[in-house]
Amino acid sequence: MDRILLGHGSGGKLMHELIKKYIAPVFELPSLMDSAIVSISHSGKLAITTDSYTVSPIFFPGGDIGDLAINGTVNDLAVVGAIPLYLTVGFILEEGFPISDFERVLNSISNAAKKAGVKIVAGDTKVVDKGKGDGIFINTSGIGIVPEGVELSPLKIEVGDKVIISGSIGNHGIAVMSERNGFVFEPPVLSDSRALNGLISEILKEFACYVKVMRDPTRGGVATTLKELALESGKDILIYENTIPLHDTVRGACELLGLDPLYVANEGIFIAIVKSHMAEKLIELMKSHPFGKESAIIGEVTGEGGKVLLKTSIGGTRIVDMLPGEQLPRIC
Amino acid sequence: MDRILLGHGSGGKLMHELIKKYIAPVFELPSLMDSAIVSISHSGKLAITTDSYTVSPIFFPGGDIGDLAINGTVNDLAVVGAIPLYLTVGFILEEGFPISDFERVLNSISNAAKKAGVKIVAGDTKVVDKGKGDGIFINTSGIGIVPEGVELSPLKIEVGDKVIISGSIGNHGIAVMSERNGFVFEPPVLSDSRALNGLISEILKEFACYVKVMRDPTRGGVATTLKELALESGKDILIYENTIPLHDTVRGACELLGLDPLYVANEGIFIAIVKSHMAEKLIELMKSHPFGKESAIIGEVTGEGGKVLLKTSIGGTRIVDMLPGEQLPRIC
Repeated sequence: MDRILLGHGSGGKLMHELIKKYIAPVFELPSLMDSAIVSISHSGKLAITTDSYTVSPIFFPGGDIGDLAINGTVNDLAVVGAIPLYLTVGFILEEGFPISDFERVLNSISNAAKKAGVKIVAGDTKVVDKGKGDGIFINTSGIGIVPEGVELSPLKIEVGDKVIISGSIGNHGIAVMSERNGFVFEPPVLSDSRALNGLISEILKEFACYVKVMRDPTRGGVATTLKELALESGKDILIYENTIPLHDTVRGACELLGLDPLYVANEGIFIAIVKSHMAEKLIELMKSHPFGKESAIIGEVTGEGGKVLLKTSIGGTRIVDMLPGEQLPRIC
Repeated sequence: MDRILLGHGSGGKLMHELIKKYIAPVFELPSLMDSAIVSISHSGKLAITTDSYTVSPIFFPGGDIGDLAINGTVNDLAVVGAIPLYLTVGFILEEGFPISDFERVLNSISNAAKKAGVKIVAGDTKVVDKGKGDGIFINTSGIGIVPEGVELSPLKIEVGDKVIISGSIGNHGIAVMSERNGFVFEPPVLSDSRALNGLISEILKEFACYVKVMRDPTRGGVATTLKELALESGKDILIYENTIPLHDTVRGACELLGLDPLYVANEGIFIAIVKSHMAEKLIELMKSHPFGKESAIIGEVTGEGGKVLLKTSIGGTRIVDMLPGEQLPRIC
């Protein structure tokens, strides 16, 4: 048996074998119960999130759907200021999906969870008939604890605040795009899929009261995320194109493909809007962390309104809006 | 615009419009943030669960994929003794899926959540290209609080304990099956899709220390669930066929289709293993609740081993095992 069968999703013997042989050992699940019981050591605020992953292809330079599913959900918790603790993983497998690919994804999930320091506590496996899915889709939901004193909100944004980005943009989208279309870049563009909770918790330990809000610019890219923040805060944001970290290979790939890197998806960076006078100090701290080496101040909050403006490297200014339609479908 | 487009999953403008116009109002989501922040009023034990729903067809007599996705996840929390509180909902939509169908499902989700008394706090929408999905898949994850003093476990099962079922079996599976194959039964068989947390909390309020374990016999049916409990507890379970509540129409449909009702999926009943001398009192309480009217004692724990035995209505005894392969794929 080397492929997924419909019976693997039946709830019966085949499913038990699949879980027992492949899933439970990798995740170190304590039991096969539908619900896990966990202890929360204090009362207070919990963050809850969910994300489904349908990236195509499932393997790409720098990552795969497995680590993406962990990192993406960990990051969604981390950017609201939470310490990610427990994740659930739900698979929708297509009949005929190679079990060897499934094993590879399971291992990625397990490694990514260990790196991020989170526990997978519950799972679910469904199988759909051939032609009604696409190999594997993964849903990852998670909860985390929001420490006392951490309260991020776009409503805290004030005129004068600085906009910080934690790393270079466009890597994930271009990595997936290149794999999907068989492009080879030299050096190859790798996805930035990684868990940001470590870096973020270091920041919040020292700078919690100076950080107004954080977001990870995934689907829709940096432009869409900034526009969301502008709309939610009612403030205008001005960013400077020449300060935005962007690798030459990604810039080249974007030119070749006719893409604006501001709209290309990221999976390992975040945007923070912070109190102006602390921005430099924060960048200093971030640069000392392996995932913040490329961090930079890329702009500031300039007034009331809800617009995002880009000062281009040749000196012009243009309005930045959300991604209008689809640019890169199934990028995460 | 009356169908789902790839751009609805892009993270950009189209997705924001879809969420703002259709999803947020129905779920009364406070914000469109990726993670929700909720308060937990006490420290202690949390139950966490996840389930993906791929039922086909998505509309069937007595329910649809929307209420199923809420009730199934609520029930997974309830049967471990938790009070379900917060759910997340993740959609994987296929390009071309009619928005009117999506609206119908969203309304079902909203109504089911209200009935069950749970809040939907976070969501996610992905779109896959036509032919790479099947209309709509839903993942529902959830958390609940386990009250002090509630600790259910198959390890508490003792010889002499009684096996209780809360309602008649096979309704959901036959309802979906009949819709899928265009069978019409008279009277129609309706899915039993419903939230059991109300009934279960009443039981646990009075009988928490007499209930050893509960499970909802969904995929794989009553037979698979009992076999799981037998294996996990290492005990033998004997059930009596003629005590198992089964509607005549379901019995007839099973005979017609060559199905054993013990393996047909349920979405609105649970099995409880309880201290023998409290079983009758428990049934009395359950019968006073609309979802427990058909409850019955169907068997007992007879010894060490891990087997499930069925005393048939004609007096024979046979071994009951888990569902061997697939019987009814995509039943939930």
